[in-house]
Amino acid sequence: MSRAQEQSRQRRCGDVRLRGFSDRASFEEAIAWLDVHGRPGLPAEDISVDAAQGRVIAEPIVAPADIPAMDCAEVDGYALRSAETEGATDYNPLLFTLNEPSHPLPLAGAVMVSAGAPLPAGADAVLPFDATQLKGATLEIFAAVAAGSGVERSGQQVRAGTALIESRRILRPQDAGLLRSIGIDRVRVVRLPRVRLVIAGPKAFTGHPSAGDANGPMLGGLIRRDGGMVETMNPAEPRCEAISQAIAEPGADVILVAGRTGTGPDDEAPLALAKVGELAIHGVALRPGGSAGMGLTGTTPVLLLPGDPLGCLCAYELLAGRLIRSLGGRSPELPHRVREAEVGRKIVSAIGFVDLCRVRLVDGRVEPVGSVEVGGLVSSVRADGFVVVPAPLEGYAPGARVKVHLY
Amino acid sequence: MSRAQEQSRQRRCGDVRLRGFSDRASFEEAIAWLDVHGRPGLPAEDISVDAAQGRVIAEPIVAPADIPAMDCAEVDGYALRSAETEGATDYNPLLFTLNEPSHPLPLAGAVMVSAGAPLPAGADAVLPFDATQLKGATLEIFAAVAAGSGVERSGQQVRAGTALIESRRILRPQDAGLLRSIGIDRVRVVRLPRVRLVIAGPKAFTGHPSAGDANGPMLGGLIRRDGGMVETMNPAEPRCEAISQAIAEPGADVILVAGRTGTGPDDEAPLALAKVGELAIHGVALRPGGSAGMGLTGTTPVLLLPGDPLGCLCAYELLAGRLIRSLGGRSPELPHRVREAEVGRKIVSAIGFVDLCRVRLVDGRVEPVGSVEVGGLVSSVRADGFVVVPAPLEGYAPGARVKVHLY
Repeated sequence: MSRAQEQSRQRRCGDVRLRGFSDRASFEEAIAWLDVHGRPGLPAEDISVDAAQGRVIAEPIVAPADIPAMDCAEVDGYALRSAETEGATDYNPLLFTLNEPSHPLPLAGAVMVSAGAPLPAGADAVLPFDATQLKGATLEIFAAVAAGSGVERSGQQVRAGTALIESRRILRPQDAGLLRSIGIDRVRVVRLPRVRLVIAGPKAFTGHPSAGDANGPMLGGLIRRDGGMVETMNPAEPRCEAISQAIAEPGADVILVAGRTGTGPDDEAPLALAKVGELAIHGVALRPGGSAGMGLTGTTPVLLLPGDPLGCLCAYELLAGRLIRSLGGRSPELPHRVREAEVGRKIVSAIGFVDLCRVRLVDGRVEPVGSVEVGGLVSSVRADGFVVVPAPLEGYAPGARVKVHLY
Repeated sequence: MSRAQEQSRQRRCGDVRLRGFSDRASFEEAIAWLDVHGRPGLPAEDISVDAAQGRVIAEPIVAPADIPAMDCAEVDGYALRSAETEGATDYNPLLFTLNEPSHPLPLAGAVMVSAGAPLPAGADAVLPFDATQLKGATLEIFAAVAAGSGVERSGQQVRAGTALIESRRILRPQDAGLLRSIGIDRVRVVRLPRVRLVIAGPKAFTGHPSAGDANGPMLGGLIRRDGGMVETMNPAEPRCEAISQAIAEPGADVILVAGRTGTGPDDEAPLALAKVGELAIHGVALRPGGSAGMGLTGTTPVLLLPGDPLGCLCAYELLAGRLIRSLGGRSPELPHRVREAEVGRKIVSAIGFVDLCRVRLVDGRVEPVGSVEVGGLVSSVRADGFVVVPAPLEGYAPGARVKVHLY
């Protein structure tokens, strides 16, 4: 680290308690730090195909053999020799004898087959039932059929060795079905990130007497959405020593500490991380969520999220979630559906901060819900989604086209 | 039922074995039947907020009290009387005494508060730490502050009685957080549909020696995606009697029978349903998946899905999934992300059938994968999504704009 970098780090990780943030990392610096520590991803593991739906495939899967492996009937009907059907019409039915599937097909012989069944030796076409009539063991056929008609050739769906499922794909229901149907029972997937959740903040931000903790259930749902496994560890007392212990405990791939990141005297989460690791950034030019921080304990990334639930939500969405998705082999980008729409009512934002503005779609146009400072968690509950306003902009005027990330 | 309707029903539910489908219900008729039986939805149940993320809210949730319930600090800092800060600047600091939160605020008194904490009686503003310096119990302040600055007024986020979460909304992580933070621990949600899965078809459609059943794992994943709880019931022998028994067993909200819907002699699923209920439709003008059927046992809807895995997938997506989503209180529409794009290579379809064409996006343009008849499950595995071609069309020419449902 150069002297200038070290000075910048010290300025950005200084004690902000009773002082305030003198300097914040830019949003881009925070993202760069997260990508360095998330991009390697976690190692792969072998699991059963049945358990693998929704998991991230770690290695490309190729067809181990032709699909289908042999010529098969494509329709229900009678397998026969196409040449022998020449001239058959409604007015000139031709006669065949019904045979067992196991026998070699005799001259003018036919075998009843279901779609998907192997084609009997000697047959080259399948005539559907509706062009036939069975009388005892004698089959009348009313239509001629070309060679290959009603037949799925071996390898017609795909040839042995062809790529079926690319690496980094999330396994779909039909993928699992196909793999099972070609005898593949186990697949290599990226291991699920083990995410430790340390709730260090005070419970209430609403003044309600029976208020419970908002951040635990909220972060739990978000982590699961992003493919992480949640392990909650609540320190008995949310002070420096106990938070340090919860961070230092081994066994997690990433640690989120929620709360105690601000400027109050008991905002000891950054201190707690520095004691058992390295605080790399404290304070990000992001609103809400500007008191977020990040660092390492050993090689494990630790994210500090604000205790105020809206700040916590925003810092999770734009920072922590990205790291969890990367570690699990998913795209680091936001996982929300995106809709482009026109701004209907001015979106106000602060120059120098990336702002996460909660918005509603009213008659297809974008309107802010609350404002950057005012809103609390309610604004994100009443919103249809959010717009991310880059740091150089002071918002969007009516008529601007923006991307809405839909909740 | 009028005589004409009854005749139509008999024509559509006649035995197709060794004959073929003489008539099929239109796709619209099938949808109408599904909507009649799905739309009432399932009854509601009370569950904990923690378990309710991802569930469908059954009744609107309104704020039981103002949020916040009292005036709170919006920032970390010192709560004080704004009038007493008049004239304070860097060059003219004013002196305050630091007080305990429990005492009434004396003249020129200040109380240290964290964001979210209740405002002490007498204070009307919060001055952030960075405009102050604490020396023992004496506080120097370097800035004047207006009344209300740094304060979140009671009810500022939302007033008591305001709608917070509308009915039919899927509970989000931040919703769960907000409810917990205002003391709401239980919510009313739509009961999860109990979906019985009866695998009646043969295993192999690939000719692979170690082939397993594709439809069970595939349908399981799709049902879970659509919010259903899966109960698998595999008849010992996939013949009429055993299938009837699996259908007639009580305890399911909807029953899917996969396999035995075609024209072969052992395609007895329609017969099995008719024995213990009523077969309403057998054969739908849908490709792949045209041998699908539907009916009732008692008042429970029963869907018959083709055993061929691609037909099974398509009939699930366009028919069965709609019913499950409706019963669970979700939107009946397809749950996939939709992207509009231009057709790059001709999409061929059959007039008179709704076709589900698997497609790829190549340089942003839509290209078919396989064709309607050819493809098997592999085509849906190698596709990025699908296009639904309405019955009156024979496909889409290059340059047409279509909606792609993305896998």
